[in-house]
Amino acid sequence: MVSQKWQKIIRSLHQKKYRHESGWFLVEGRKPVLELLASTLQVQALFATEAFLQENKGILLKAAFLTEPATCEELQRLSTLQTNDAALAVVQARPNNALRPAAGEWLLALDDLRDPGNLGTIIRIADWYGLQKIICSESTVELFNPKVIAASMGSFLRVDTFYTDLPAYFRQFPALSVFGTFLDGSAVQAAHFGGAGGCIVIGNESRGISPQVAACVQERLTIPRFGGAESLNAGIATAIVLDNLRRLVS
Amino acid sequence: MVSQKWQKIIRSLHQKKYRHESGWFLVEGRKPVLELLASTLQVQALFATEAFLQENKGILLKAAFLTEPATCEELQRLSTLQTNDAALAVVQARPNNALRPAAGEWLLALDDLRDPGNLGTIIRIADWYGLQKIICSESTVELFNPKVIAASMGSFLRVDTFYTDLPAYFRQFPALSVFGTFLDGSAVQAAHFGGAGGCIVIGNESRGISPQVAACVQERLTIPRFGGAESLNAGIATAIVLDNLRRLVS
Repeated sequence: MVSQKWQKIIRSLHQKKYRHESGWFLVEGRKPVLELLASTLQVQALFATEAFLQENKGILLKAAFLTEPATCEELQRLSTLQTNDAALAVVQARPNNALRPAAGEWLLALDDLRDPGNLGTIIRIADWYGLQKIICSESTVELFNPKVIAASMGSFLRVDTFYTDLPAYFRQFPALSVFGTFLDGSAVQAAHFGGAGGCIVIGNESRGISPQVAACVQERLTIPRFGGAESLNAGIATAIVLDNLRRLVS
Repeated sequence: MVSQKWQKIIRSLHQKKYRHESGWFLVEGRKPVLELLASTLQVQALFATEAFLQENKGILLKAAFLTEPATCEELQRLSTLQTNDAALAVVQARPNNALRPAAGEWLLALDDLRDPGNLGTIIRIADWYGLQKIICSESTVELFNPKVIAASMGSFLRVDTFYTDLPAYFRQFPALSVFGTFLDGSAVQAAHFGGAGGCIVIGNESRGISPQVAACVQERLTIPRFGGAESLNAGIATAIVLDNLRRLVS
């Protein structure tokens, strides 16, 4: 049984305003919650079915946070997911710590990415290709939006984000090679990524990379088109650039 | 003003059952409707704002179908889209004509793909990479689902689909080279696609390629992973395979 107090807290965390005020966010569903429990993130409270609690008794025995049984109906009602028949956790948000590029490291930068599903997908793709840091413009959709967390499929636990002003960030690291995708760049399949690492910028879903950020890009890349579609979505473009990067630079 | 009769028809076309019975489907929003009007598909009726009708007077002058003005509010109410302030068309579905591989052609095959957003995205990717035919297992989500049409961003007009039994299809074309993505294949970046064309199979979102279809696959491919994510979604996997295909075979 989820108390009235916690029901109110959980419902409030569906909204950005309350996530921002409390510094908490939601992780929902069996698999994301299991990955969360194996991570270093600080859980405030866990609500889960008796079956889930029973199955994960070993892990939960050491838990220093509130753990309460909940029925599937309660979880369903409190969750932002279409179906949640396992668990829901209230979690302390990571602070927006500055991320610096390590020597030889490849970063991703997102310029005004607005769709939460796209951000979650891009975090998952970054994780697949072994990138660990994503620099987000301040206008990029919030990491702790439940749709971002859901779409990232647990990868938000392995990839760090840092929200900041992108042009200022690039000025801070003048040695960083900055690549971006445009309609008029050179083919990404033959890009000269070089062995010193760098940063790949992905632009807004409809407007692409903004002029201020474009001015920081040293290498303009394009994904060549063979047919009639006008564009590819931001997640697809990210995957193709990273696939070529990993093929050309290992 | 949309008549009661047409309101009822449009609402019924939100459902698969009525699309199947009538042989009609919906195309919604400014850009998809404009691309539709430039295509050979047979429109039954068009409902659009006065502004849209005025802007496209030239094209609509020759129209042999019902064209009616509608307010933004009416369109919004009748549309499956979150916002539709332009146009909605009722369109005759294409028949499920058999598609044969032409000499040297590359096809895509979808084995039990269930998510309409994924199918739409894959149609758009196929179109970007210049593939014109997608062979779908009979259990694959219906092309005329409004979410498929919306996610394809007009590419459903340029890419043909054929729903059929995949193993029977592959038996019919024994010379067709069949490639598929698995967890244990060889790296797609070094695949031997060959110059004779072939077919690339994409599997179900959670179960992958079924055993019956896997038995028809001659070359097992894998997208190598560098980090912690467990999987990539079906659209992303399709894009990466086709990007490597076009790089290796032009």
